[in-house]
Amino acid sequence: MSNTFGKIFTFTSFGESHGRAIGGIIDGCPPLVEIDEAFIQYELDRRRPGQSDITTPRREDDRVEFLSGIFEGRTTGTPIAFVIWNGNQRSTDYDHLREVYRPSHADFTYQQKYGIRDHRGGGRSSARETAARVVAGAIAKLALRQAGIEITAYTSQVGHIAMTLPADRIDPSEIEKNIVRCPQPEIAEQMIDYIRQLKAEGDSIGGIVTCVVKHLPAGWGNPIFDKLSTRLAQAMFSINAVHGFDYGMGWDGVALKGSEQNDAFMTKEGKITTATNRSGGIQGGISNGQDVYFRVLFKPVATIAKCQHTVDVHGQEVLLEAHGRHDPCVLPRAVPVVEAMAAIALMDFYMLAHG
Amino acid sequence: MSNTFGKIFTFTSFGESHGRAIGGIIDGCPPLVEIDEAFIQYELDRRRPGQSDITTPRREDDRVEFLSGIFEGRTTGTPIAFVIWNGNQRSTDYDHLREVYRPSHADFTYQQKYGIRDHRGGGRSSARETAARVVAGAIAKLALRQAGIEITAYTSQVGHIAMTLPADRIDPSEIEKNIVRCPQPEIAEQMIDYIRQLKAEGDSIGGIVTCVVKHLPAGWGNPIFDKLSTRLAQAMFSINAVHGFDYGMGWDGVALKGSEQNDAFMTKEGKITTATNRSGGIQGGISNGQDVYFRVLFKPVATIAKCQHTVDVHGQEVLLEAHGRHDPCVLPRAVPVVEAMAAIALMDFYMLAHG
Amino acid sequence: MSNTFGKIFTFTSFGESHGRAIGGIIDGCPPLVEIDEAFIQYELDRRRPGQSDITTPRREDDRVEFLSGIFEGRTTGTPIAFVIWNGNQRSTDYDHLREVYRPSHADFTYQQKYGIRDHRGGGRSSARETAARVVAGAIAKLALRQAGIEITAYTSQVGHIAMTLPADRIDPSEIEKNIVRCPQPEIAEQMIDYIRQLKAEGDSIGGIVTCVVKHLPAGWGNPIFDKLSTRLAQAMFSINAVHGFDYGMGWDGVALKGSEQNDAFMTKEGKITTATNRSGGIQGGISNGQDVYFRVLFKPVATIAKCQHTVDVHGQEVLLEAHGRHDPCVLPRAVPVVEAMAAIALMDFYMLAHG
Amino acid sequence: MSNTFGKIFTFTSFGESHGRAIGGIIDGCPPLVEIDEAFIQYELDRRRPGQSDITTPRREDDRVEFLSGIFEGRTTGTPIAFVIWNGNQRSTDYDHLREVYRPSHADFTYQQKYGIRDHRGGGRSSARETAARVVAGAIAKLALRQAGIEITAYTSQVGHIAMTLPADRIDPSEIEKNIVRCPQPEIAEQMIDYIRQLKAEGDSIGGIVTCVVKHLPAGWGNPIFDKLSTRLAQAMFSINAVHGFDYGMGWDGVALKGSEQNDAFMTKEGKITTATNRSGGIQGGISNGQDVYFRVLFKPVATIAKCQHTVDVHGQEVLLEAHGRHDPCVLPRAVPVVEAMAAIALMDFYMLAHG
Repeated sequence: MSNTFGKIFTFTSFGESHGRAIGGIIDGCPPLVEIDEAFIQYELDRRRPGQSDITTPRREDDRVEFLSGIFEGRTTGTPIAFVIWNGNQRSTDYDHLREVYRPSHADFTYQQKYGIRDHRGGGRSSARETAARVVAGAIAKLALRQAGIEITAYTSQVGHIAMTLPADRIDPSEIEKNIVRCPQPEIAEQMIDYIRQLKAEGDSIGGIVTCVVKHLPAGWGNPIFDKLSTRLAQAMFSINAVHGFDYGMGWDGVALKGSEQNDAFMTKEGKITTATNRSGGIQGGISNGQDVYFRVLFKPVATIAKCQHTVDVHGQEVLLEAHGRHDPCVLPRAVPVVEAMAAIALMDFYMLAHG
Repeated sequence: MSNTFGKIFTFTSFGESHGRAIGGIIDGCPPLVEIDEAFIQYELDRRRPGQSDITTPRREDDRVEFLSGIFEGRTTGTPIAFVIWNGNQRSTDYDHLREVYRPSHADFTYQQKYGIRDHRGGGRSSARETAARVVAGAIAKLALRQAGIEITAYTSQVGHIAMTLPADRIDPSEIEKNIVRCPQPEIAEQMIDYIRQLKAEGDSIGGIVTCVVKHLPAGWGNPIFDKLSTRLAQAMFSINAVHGFDYGMGWDGVALKGSEQNDAFMTKEGKITTATNRSGGIQGGISNGQDVYFRVLFKPVATIAKCQHTVDVHGQEVLLEAHGRHDPCVLPRAVPVVEAMAAIALMDFYMLAHG
Repeated sequence: MSNTFGKIFTFTSFGESHGRAIGGIIDGCPPLVEIDEAFIQYELDRRRPGQSDITTPRREDDRVEFLSGIFEGRTTGTPIAFVIWNGNQRSTDYDHLREVYRPSHADFTYQQKYGIRDHRGGGRSSARETAARVVAGAIAKLALRQAGIEITAYTSQVGHIAMTLPADRIDPSEIEKNIVRCPQPEIAEQMIDYIRQLKAEGDSIGGIVTCVVKHLPAGWGNPIFDKLSTRLAQAMFSINAVHGFDYGMGWDGVALKGSEQNDAFMTKEGKITTATNRSGGIQGGISNGQDVYFRVLFKPVATIAKCQHTVDVHGQEVLLEAHGRHDPCVLPRAVPVVEAMAAIALMDFYMLAHG
Repeated sequence: MSNTFGKIFTFTSFGESHGRAIGGIIDGCPPLVEIDEAFIQYELDRRRPGQSDITTPRREDDRVEFLSGIFEGRTTGTPIAFVIWNGNQRSTDYDHLREVYRPSHADFTYQQKYGIRDHRGGGRSSARETAARVVAGAIAKLALRQAGIEITAYTSQVGHIAMTLPADRIDPSEIEKNIVRCPQPEIAEQMIDYIRQLKAEGDSIGGIVTCVVKHLPAGWGNPIFDKLSTRLAQAMFSINAVHGFDYGMGWDGVALKGSEQNDAFMTKEGKITTATNRSGGIQGGISNGQDVYFRVLFKPVATIAKCQHTVDVHGQEVLLEAHGRHDPCVLPRAVPVVEAMAAIALMDFYMLAHG
């Protein structure tokens, strides 16, 4: 079950980066959702490697093939299985890594846990697996759209370079206008320059993706252990390289007092609302009808082109030789993955609300 | 199920702050664990209100009564139910809040979700509920102790006042020596002064609890959606007022490159280990045998003594009058709750490892 | 989790027959259900020992005490915890059974599984635990009643004595008119005589409880692994001594051909219905709007007053001495338990349908 | 989640009978299990249509293609995804059923529940889906074999024709020697003749499959709601056309007294065992180390060649024309499905026992 997310609308993921295919099964999808294949491909393209000079130059032509659960263009309520075939992989490219534990990768821990692992391209622990989530997330988005809910993520920080615009002031149409997916153009430029520089150095860098969910009705989320905030955190920590999550003011509010963080209730056009939204639209784990916003912290990708010391499975010292073709910064490609996981996470609450 | 945590070792919580009792059921506890009642009471006492002048002066004499699952001092493998009786509550004390939505509390969202709520002392959304978790956590700790695993949390930041000692340099025996539970005495003093000052102002403040898990075997945690990191995050976000979580370098490493964050593998005394532990003992969601450490961000308690603007259930403006008896800073009392939830979260992996 | 039933509306049970108390937690109950305490007590009284001369003469004055989840007489959507206190038990009464494995009881298997057990009165494996289910079932019934759904069970066979009236011809008002709860008076009399005879012999007997669910809407049940039939079967096999379950024609139809069992569709008053209901109201695991009916097979209670050969925990032969106070036939008291578990089982589907 | 079985070792099924493919994902499989592809194909062949003149003459060349989770011939602990491609289907063959509700099929209930359905060949409700379970079951069997556990099912009754040999007296090597899979040759012959006669009549018949699990260790199964018996029942009721389940003496013992059904404990070669095994190897929901045996009741297949009255989606009367190619009796092909589901059901307990 550790490869399944959700309880009512569930997504089960499978596949290794250099196996036959990756893919998954969506179970519990509401029936009669129109499958917009062009939209699904658009989402996959946003995640695809090789999309710009600041992502890995690897080419993966990710096309999804649906196997079940869709009839004459609409979902039927039965499981939606799909595959994304892996291209012709030259497995021998990875022979030198068969017995090597790459620093800060999952090679060692998988071997400790399972006593066996597919070493090719990281196998199951490869971020290639997230392509399957983007497919499931796209279908979740199509369902959520029926309820008017919009999910928008963007790169808000790369290394030390951070946006200065707050989440409620951005123009979403700016996000896709640059290759780093940051809606503040002048900052985007600095980020891109910095990533190019690190690429040249053979190094990598992390950063922050911010995500905003708009038009979420009040009442979603189940206290105590299945809060809206918890489910979103759970969704985000499943993404490769994620090491932190906060919502509302989060880490930025650590020095602020209660009187500076409380959101006063007020009445506006006959409806109860809040004067501010410092708590990120969630109280007691339940949405309050305001925008939900949260941040996801990515550490730098562990694969770097620099030479590193490590050991092999026998404990012998190994000098890990530099190889190309990694992402110097995973954030531009992580943006659609954050959106996809947020959409999947929201679907259980959608199902409970819509029956 | 939203009041149940875990899959194999599960804890189900119940109770409102001014109802008859709070408590819970632990299911799936391994048999033959010796129940050390003094230890359980010690843990409850660390969480108890009124323990110092920087916590709420409310007196709750929290004593646990076990109803099942224990036979002649040892667990039997059957469900362990327990209650903590609520004292004689003067419910009329809360009559003025019956129709008022307190800012940044869960009053409004519970009402939106359920159409009814127990308004007395926050009802189900009160942090009083966490006392039940401390009991379950104490039993989890007793089981984990058999496997040599130790969990230690402490207050590492209050408002702007942060410890300077890193997690791997602290002396755990210092934690309980001061009332704020910070193992760096000179910082602890500043924290205490600051909390006293805010108490006088009728305001509140948040901060950070750091937690370290020692002697965790390699191989705990299940990729992709049930990582060790995910489960810990899930545990922490269930705690009242938690708005952020990170592990390893986390937020502190946002500006550091891959070459500065990777942990090189090395062999030491015939065993594979890592030269550094920047990733917090987890790779690919699985423990690597190093210490696991993480941080939990608490926002300031929403209850403050200052006068606040808000509305009632009819949308009418209300001036919320100041009342005493809140915690100016929840962190000293949150420390045992963080430990308890960490212990509960680890038990599923313990059960899978120990069969 | 093995003491929890359900996924959305869940019931978690605790308690040993001679421990402090039995009880449970209902989680996911819809809010605003009126708690009719007299009805709950009525249901408990139907299950209570000592209610007639054909049940055990043990007196248990089962009264439920609610601890949470109810506010001013209505459910709040938060966990409903409750206890039924065990009376003053003379534990020493059971000292002679401390090391003995009673034939066809769970003494041996609990000991093998857990290495420890509460031997007093069967401990956790005692049917006393079902009283807690009757409480949860009563609340489920109150919620289902809002949707017009009625659940009626009755004793349809005791040993070789079987009713001749089919389920769709019974008069439910006859059930509570006799102590064996059989709605065919002349058969009821034979059953009662037979049970009295077995009681005198110090023996026990099993039989069949039939249950009918009326006014269930079409569309409840989730294929493939969570069918309505599966969930009902799961609910029934959790009851002590249940060894069989069928629905629709079930075992009675084993020799009938497809052409003799198919239910033809027809239109009646503008609505699609079926001419017959041999399939028990379920097709492909989903309700079709007809009555759902099923049967539950109980084996004889393992406790008999006759002298039996067995062994103790050391493998030494023991002659198990006769003791009184058992139920010669569990069926009259099982009827409310079957109804309760059916009600609990239906609630998940209710929640999915009502959101 | 209704297409997922199990909690630790889970199987998620997908696919419609005339869609692109059927298949599934096994999650939580222990690593290092050798994948014997010939054995898996052998199991599929036992379920395959067209295997004899008493099964449907449809030809489905069921071959499994594994997509993930297997590396160099062994499982890796990661999800095992597989597909069985559907052959070239002539969808137009089913156009006349597009708007017709076939009697006692799931057409009507799917339409009521989802508002849409794939009408071709029963779509998701087709028994074709069980081929995927046979693959998952074969892998479960390979894992269980490591623990010495053997699962054997056979046809014990067809219509009124029942075996006279009890389960503990059969010779398993006889099962595959005849096309009805009944280990009592003279009865098998009668069954086959009867099925041929019904086939000629255009009718169908049900019956009973008996299953025996040998060498199961004591201690498997979790009271109260996750008993070994419950899990087996749950597994069996998921199979198409199953309407009954019993274990131990079950229905055959309904007229027997407690003194006639209790299994006396005794010591044999220094080990505690039982003199008889009327309870089917399970007490209190936990295995006792004896053989576990149970029976599964199948109603006749709803598809018959006889002309039937029914209605279409508009409620108009329709005369359903006779078509060939159905199974007159599903039992011979159900035998491997019963074994597969039993194997899958046991794996959770295996995982809990083996860690």
